[in-house]
Amino acid sequence: MTIQSFHPPRRTLMGPGPSDVYPRVTEALARPTIGHLDPEFVRMMDEIKQLLQFAFKTENPLTLPVSAPGSAGMETCFANLVEPGDKVIVCINGVFGGRMKENVERCGGEAIIVQGEWGRAVDPAAVEETLNAHSDAKIVAFVHAETSTGARSDAKALCALARQYNCLTIVDAVTSLGGSELEVDAWGIDAIYSGTQKCLSCVPGLSPVSFSAKAVEKIQNRQTKVQSWFLDLNLVMGYWGQGVKRAYHHTAPVNALYALHESLVILQEEGLENAWARHQQHHNALVAGLEAIGMSMVVPASERLAQLNLVSVPEGVDEAAVRAQLLADYNLEIGAGLGDFAGKVWRIGLMGCAATKTNVLFCLGALETVMNKSGATQAALAVYQQ
Amino acid sequence: MTIQSFHPPRRTLMGPGPSDVYPRVTEALARPTIGHLDPEFVRMMDEIKQLLQFAFKTENPLTLPVSAPGSAGMETCFANLVEPGDKVIVCINGVFGGRMKENVERCGGEAIIVQGEWGRAVDPAAVEETLNAHSDAKIVAFVHAETSTGARSDAKALCALARQYNCLTIVDAVTSLGGSELEVDAWGIDAIYSGTQKCLSCVPGLSPVSFSAKAVEKIQNRQTKVQSWFLDLNLVMGYWGQGVKRAYHHTAPVNALYALHESLVILQEEGLENAWARHQQHHNALVAGLEAIGMSMVVPASERLAQLNLVSVPEGVDEAAVRAQLLADYNLEIGAGLGDFAGKVWRIGLMGCAATKTNVLFCLGALETVMNKSGATQAALAVYQQ
Repeated sequence: MTIQSFHPPRRTLMGPGPSDVYPRVTEALARPTIGHLDPEFVRMMDEIKQLLQFAFKTENPLTLPVSAPGSAGMETCFANLVEPGDKVIVCINGVFGGRMKENVERCGGEAIIVQGEWGRAVDPAAVEETLNAHSDAKIVAFVHAETSTGARSDAKALCALARQYNCLTIVDAVTSLGGSELEVDAWGIDAIYSGTQKCLSCVPGLSPVSFSAKAVEKIQNRQTKVQSWFLDLNLVMGYWGQGVKRAYHHTAPVNALYALHESLVILQEEGLENAWARHQQHHNALVAGLEAIGMSMVVPASERLAQLNLVSVPEGVDEAAVRAQLLADYNLEIGAGLGDFAGKVWRIGLMGCAATKTNVLFCLGALETVMNKSGATQAALAVYQQ
Repeated sequence: MTIQSFHPPRRTLMGPGPSDVYPRVTEALARPTIGHLDPEFVRMMDEIKQLLQFAFKTENPLTLPVSAPGSAGMETCFANLVEPGDKVIVCINGVFGGRMKENVERCGGEAIIVQGEWGRAVDPAAVEETLNAHSDAKIVAFVHAETSTGARSDAKALCALARQYNCLTIVDAVTSLGGSELEVDAWGIDAIYSGTQKCLSCVPGLSPVSFSAKAVEKIQNRQTKVQSWFLDLNLVMGYWGQGVKRAYHHTAPVNALYALHESLVILQEEGLENAWARHQQHHNALVAGLEAIGMSMVVPASERLAQLNLVSVPEGVDEAAVRAQLLADYNLEIGAGLGDFAGKVWRIGLMGCAATKTNVLFCLGALETVMNKSGATQAALAVYQQ
């Protein structure tokens, strides 16, 4: 066995994530490794916390990146906030709501399901009904931006509702952070997790999280230990906490954190609201192009995520063959359907630095050719000229 | 608030890890991100599995890198193998044995402690005594290379003992993989975890693990679900499993895996036995130098790790001030003591690409100056000239 160095092809990533990474971010990633307790590193950790507070629009002191992908960020929220026997209302309108239920149950909690429709926002009326029926529920959990369906739920309304019933909220913002309006403090979100590989255009592998004062209080006053040592925030806080003195917990993924720092500096330079608007603009153009060649969007316009676009695969089209051809001829990745949507939809991402006019026109042009249609790029150009 | 890009200082890392990273590895890290289900990526995953089998000296099909640091690799072993009520014999001779106990208890298991001396190998006779007293124990867990003390335990003997008593073994090889003799199959290790930031000289953030057929059987026949969704190997296997078809589980840390692949290609080029011998050679020179200036090693010679050298801080020396001066004047990081050894020892790492003659002489020269001694580098040079 002799294995050679791996040289990946250069793709354009327009699937559900990872998205293309800013060149400045990969450059930062490759900077010299230093120790995870080095004073210079500790200083950078403090900056990451500030930058994440900016991105999440929060002043929560407990705001940090978990040293593992978004799924571990999800588990950090549930493992720390759910105690055995706790009733948790879980809204399911796609794959990731289902994963929340798994998390609740593996923490010994009881999941009360609000089943929603795939491709639609969570229905606040259904949540209120469930809150009324379960007055002993302690937490409401839902997905802000469902990566499996492209639907955006009304996080502000759902959090207001939960608060009214004295419940904490756990919110999945893996695909929304940096791409859609998101206001942790103003909306009263208690626990939130995201990913670095979506609208931040950083490499995959980290999960930014943030916890409100009420959430921290619950974590600090648990009756039982958090079942995960690695994700126990009572311990993680000692490393990511205030001041110069940090207690060793685990070895931080030093270089990945350089990359996250740089992606957040870029977001700060652009401005959060500008980034949201940019995603929306390119989304409008992409949708016009897709509809011009007879394709239909899965999610109603008012509930759509700009950064993740689900289109129905036209009848008679071999969806996997189209994706394979896009990859082979264009080095272009778009996403397949997941769960209930497997084989039925494509997921076209416009995330972070992939949300550009160039990418929209490139993707539409490729689809025109592969599907033997025309008019998509013209329709998109018309939107840009408005 | 305006935060600038972060440019880390260029250190020489001779602490307990992270170690200096091969330039080829940081270069690989910065290659273009591709999708975690891209056929090219899946091909690279297969190569990583093969390379890890080579590094661990195993044919275990379930050999892969966990998408998080070594602490998560530890938790992967315990969360998958320990079921509520299981008795686990845990050998504690440093910080990481203590962390194993935490893991057992958080999984609902009962930890039976074999308390050893800090800075010494685990005593097989004490383990056998405990096995005799607890015939219902199911697992023996111990640290092969204690990163907090620099002691190497006899993993071969301990595994033979465990097998004799029908116990599975869980072995911490965070600091030994690639630096010391380690034979997973020949020694009969059932579950092992390591880290990328030690003797592989890769960036921190991943944890290579491997599981024997007996361990896999136990995992597949659990009575209860693994309490962590993220670390549940029954699910992870669907992504890292055989064949081209991979089930999405979580988004893999794509770029970090490029880096791991490259570090393992380098190890393959050098040869495993050559890498072990190189660590030993530079260790011999370092120890000669340290002893020449009156410093004493903490661990008896026959139980020492070559790659992590614990020396007692001489009486009257302000250990933190010395480390601060090495960092400030030489950009040289050596490690502080941890746990029982805090304030009493330094930990000098010679890991991966940091195990070189240049580093040994640089470190000894710096210590001579800072501590106002002489003769260390001469003594080391004499060893090299033998």
